[in-house]
Amino acid sequence: MLCRVGCEFIYEAPAPTPAIAQVFVRPDGDHRIVAERRGLEPEAAFREFCDGFGNRVGRFVVPEGTFTLRYDALVEVSGEPDPVVPEAPQTPVEELPDEALRFVLPSRYCQSDRLLSVAWDLFGETEPGWARVQAVCDWVHDNLTFMHGSVGLADAVEVYLQRRGVCRDFAHLAVTFCRALNIPARYGFGYMGDIGVPPMDAPMDFHAWFEVFLGERWYTFDCHHNTPRIGRIFVGRGRDAVDVAMLTTFGAAALQRMTVWADEVPEGTTLDD
Amino acid sequence: MLCRVGCEFIYEAPAPTPAIAQVFVRPDGDHRIVAERRGLEPEAAFREFCDGFGNRVGRFVVPEGTFTLRYDALVEVSGEPDPVVPEAPQTPVEELPDEALRFVLPSRYCQSDRLLSVAWDLFGETEPGWARVQAVCDWVHDNLTFMHGSVGLADAVEVYLQRRGVCRDFAHLAVTFCRALNIPARYGFGYMGDIGVPPMDAPMDFHAWFEVFLGERWYTFDCHHNTPRIGRIFVGRGRDAVDVAMLTTFGAAALQRMTVWADEVPEGTTLDD
Amino acid sequence: MLCRVGCEFIYEAPAPTPAIAQVFVRPDGDHRIVAERRGLEPEAAFREFCDGFGNRVGRFVVPEGTFTLRYDALVEVSGEPDPVVPEAPQTPVEELPDEALRFVLPSRYCQSDRLLSVAWDLFGETEPGWARVQAVCDWVHDNLTFMHGSVGLADAVEVYLQRRGVCRDFAHLAVTFCRALNIPARYGFGYMGDIGVPPMDAPMDFHAWFEVFLGERWYTFDCHHNTPRIGRIFVGRGRDAVDVAMLTTFGAAALQRMTVWADEVPEGTTLDD
Amino acid sequence: MLCRVGCEFIYEAPAPTPAIAQVFVRPDGDHRIVAERRGLEPEAAFREFCDGFGNRVGRFVVPEGTFTLRYDALVEVSGEPDPVVPEAPQTPVEELPDEALRFVLPSRYCQSDRLLSVAWDLFGETEPGWARVQAVCDWVHDNLTFMHGSVGLADAVEVYLQRRGVCRDFAHLAVTFCRALNIPARYGFGYMGDIGVPPMDAPMDFHAWFEVFLGERWYTFDCHHNTPRIGRIFVGRGRDAVDVAMLTTFGAAALQRMTVWADEVPEGTTLDD
Repeated sequence: MLCRVGCEFIYEAPAPTPAIAQVFVRPDGDHRIVAERRGLEPEAAFREFCDGFGNRVGRFVVPEGTFTLRYDALVEVSGEPDPVVPEAPQTPVEELPDEALRFVLPSRYCQSDRLLSVAWDLFGETEPGWARVQAVCDWVHDNLTFMHGSVGLADAVEVYLQRRGVCRDFAHLAVTFCRALNIPARYGFGYMGDIGVPPMDAPMDFHAWFEVFLGERWYTFDCHHNTPRIGRIFVGRGRDAVDVAMLTTFGAAALQRMTVWADEVPEGTTLDD
Repeated sequence: MLCRVGCEFIYEAPAPTPAIAQVFVRPDGDHRIVAERRGLEPEAAFREFCDGFGNRVGRFVVPEGTFTLRYDALVEVSGEPDPVVPEAPQTPVEELPDEALRFVLPSRYCQSDRLLSVAWDLFGETEPGWARVQAVCDWVHDNLTFMHGSVGLADAVEVYLQRRGVCRDFAHLAVTFCRALNIPARYGFGYMGDIGVPPMDAPMDFHAWFEVFLGERWYTFDCHHNTPRIGRIFVGRGRDAVDVAMLTTFGAAALQRMTVWADEVPEGTTLDD
Repeated sequence: MLCRVGCEFIYEAPAPTPAIAQVFVRPDGDHRIVAERRGLEPEAAFREFCDGFGNRVGRFVVPEGTFTLRYDALVEVSGEPDPVVPEAPQTPVEELPDEALRFVLPSRYCQSDRLLSVAWDLFGETEPGWARVQAVCDWVHDNLTFMHGSVGLADAVEVYLQRRGVCRDFAHLAVTFCRALNIPARYGFGYMGDIGVPPMDAPMDFHAWFEVFLGERWYTFDCHHNTPRIGRIFVGRGRDAVDVAMLTTFGAAALQRMTVWADEVPEGTTLDD
Repeated sequence: MLCRVGCEFIYEAPAPTPAIAQVFVRPDGDHRIVAERRGLEPEAAFREFCDGFGNRVGRFVVPEGTFTLRYDALVEVSGEPDPVVPEAPQTPVEELPDEALRFVLPSRYCQSDRLLSVAWDLFGETEPGWARVQAVCDWVHDNLTFMHGSVGLADAVEVYLQRRGVCRDFAHLAVTFCRALNIPARYGFGYMGDIGVPPMDAPMDFHAWFEVFLGERWYTFDCHHNTPRIGRIFVGRGRDAVDVAMLTTFGAAALQRMTVWADEVPEGTTLDD
């Protein structure tokens, strides 16, 4: 199945402003990048590197005036929904791979140390492993109200107390609960269209979800939708939204408009179509 | 100059408990490990890996009953105090090395996003570069009260409001201010004896400090002592104390006693002395 | 000078909902109530009492369906701006009247205990008394950005860190600083039109300000406008916005629309005009 | 039954320091003050007033040097334990007495607005009225760990997250849950010996508990002991510990030692015994 994904950001800057973008499809994963194109207007120096989580990070300086960053990609996806493996067991801490260990630790937005007692109260009686993670997802899905356009980055404690947020907040809270329960959990971020589901009632946006380590691999969960989905395309993974910040500017550049797309397209589509 | 550093932890565990230790001298740095020895009693499986920050991390399972972890090392240090380079310039964000970028981002205990305005209020008028970092150090040193034995891990916002803490808290607050000012800052942790200074009035303990990236390299600052010191031996580096947690147990093992040593010893000393 | 002030609230309730309103002009103060009228539609039981701060509090039950609460008043005001008395001295704590003491204590939104060090950092060098309070006002006025329609009740610590808010938040932060400096400060809330100043660029709303005890009386300060104003009409006083909550519903009634007015009117105007 | 209660505070002050004490037995309540005596050494001016909650508040200035405040009282108590009235119904908000309304609002340490969802999650299924309050008590008693000598005043959100504290923190959390459930709750503070129970394993101290309004009156609950007790003697009531602060000093006086007593004594005992 072929998807076309991408985004366009328009900035207005009173002075040159260093910036970082994390909007590029990851080179690894279940998807395959067929073609991609990046445009900066006016043209500007641009450099990409791979961070410690394997994410592609773009570095550039927003020039004075109006500036557009555009990214467009064709990506082949499997057409299969997120795997559901109810028998996936919880991995004892001592058997976790070394690189999974950092994902049981607290982070800026996922202060699992502070929600430790709450997590055990809510999920201590559930079956360890897949069922426990699904219980976390169900709780977050059932108890949080999705609020489009809520401003401000709330941390998981605030999200837990206020019970509302956007998909990022849903993911942060679920990640936090999992870590408190000694299940490695990492934040996922990327493109996801409404393939196989009714169209959304809101402009397309980036989406956030999370992954947990069970048995011997990572599995994707999405407590906002709380149902396996098709066409999830990773841009970034990390401890939380700090590690996959979409766009960061170090100075006065103001984002004027942001457009995101993620659609299934006919086989044979090219970036010039 | 030769130093002998190490520690001993005695646990009491009602059941086998997975654990992680970060107490081993880093293989890199200005120091050189002459000899080291690790003891577990009773003997237990132990495995070491190197995390994403280059820290040595030990993994083991505390067995039921009484358990002792002991680490002892002879380390050659330069005998030179921390470098002081007042002319070290601030590096513009767009010229920072890729791997320094993550150290301008907020973390669990260093929420630089939340202290952004405070940092600019306090230090916005100082000269960028070395002088600005020194101003941060001076402020933290002058405004915080050192409190031995204060319990609980406070984040930088709490430390700023309450104006007290241990060396870890001093470092967290300074790191937070530097990041808010777009200066990469990382948390440092390790052994440091009282070489060249009056002996401490408290039992030897691990020590925490921080590093900033200025010009083209990292420099060490220590706002607890706020003076260049000799014999700083790194165990770990990271975003904050989450990344260098000394000891983490996943379960009910209780630490009964902890002893730390860090002393200058005569050349020729061996671990058997 | 005659002012007409009042408000109208339209609710939609799925079930009868107990409610409390604090929108009625205080009987005391520099103003004089010439006439007032209250309307509930459909008619409903309504009872008024005077709380421990001398505020008028209305109690009623919002019936199922659509409900309107309307309050309309003609109030004679002096036409004089808020007094400015630069020589007003700070009253030593031991000489404060008993009833002023509770206004040096922290409250829900004004946690003066948490901003104690910050307050002394910022204002410890200013001249005690009027000049110190004016310095607080100037700082709050200069450092906070007014944001219409920001949702959520932030406490003074958050307001200090985030540096933005509505007039309530401005008042909370100033009150908090004053209390930290041992100056009794109370939150004020009421009607205030744009008499003698350019018309506002936003729909009329309630306004919040604060009072401090200096010398032997209370003085009004307004760090949002930060200039003496004419026609300030008190609805409520209290420790903070908890004590003067405008409207509180204990259940599912939803506020559909709120209209507020506060205008100078010709002498001789009646409520039927 | 006759009790002797009182306390002694020894201060060391580098300069005269205004102070407030709330340690005097309330004139109202189920107890009766038989005799009381207050001593200040060296002698100092002292004035008492009654605050808005009916608490006795003493005002004085701690002189430079060493200063002792001593209070000693003989109090007749009923000998009956706290009433248990399981059939006491929850009072609908619209029927609450006016003066009870302020005790459903949030306060400095009891931010019932922030724990609203948590309270309904935990207690929403319980029977309204006495059973609901008892469920709150049971939960707090069962889930919090008593920690003598924990420093710092934590608010109810912190207490809920950290699950530990002293009797004040137990009371704050229970008060907060009750208010979130629309049950008026106020903080109580005073003397309580170990009458009819095994002697405590710690020096006698003041004790904190809380009261709720059910049916047509206030009832006492104590989620630290979580059992009806004999000989509870009120010093103060209020929204939370801010309103009954035991001792507040406005300046540099340092408390050197505090002694508290609360014992049953033979009938006929006098203060000179």
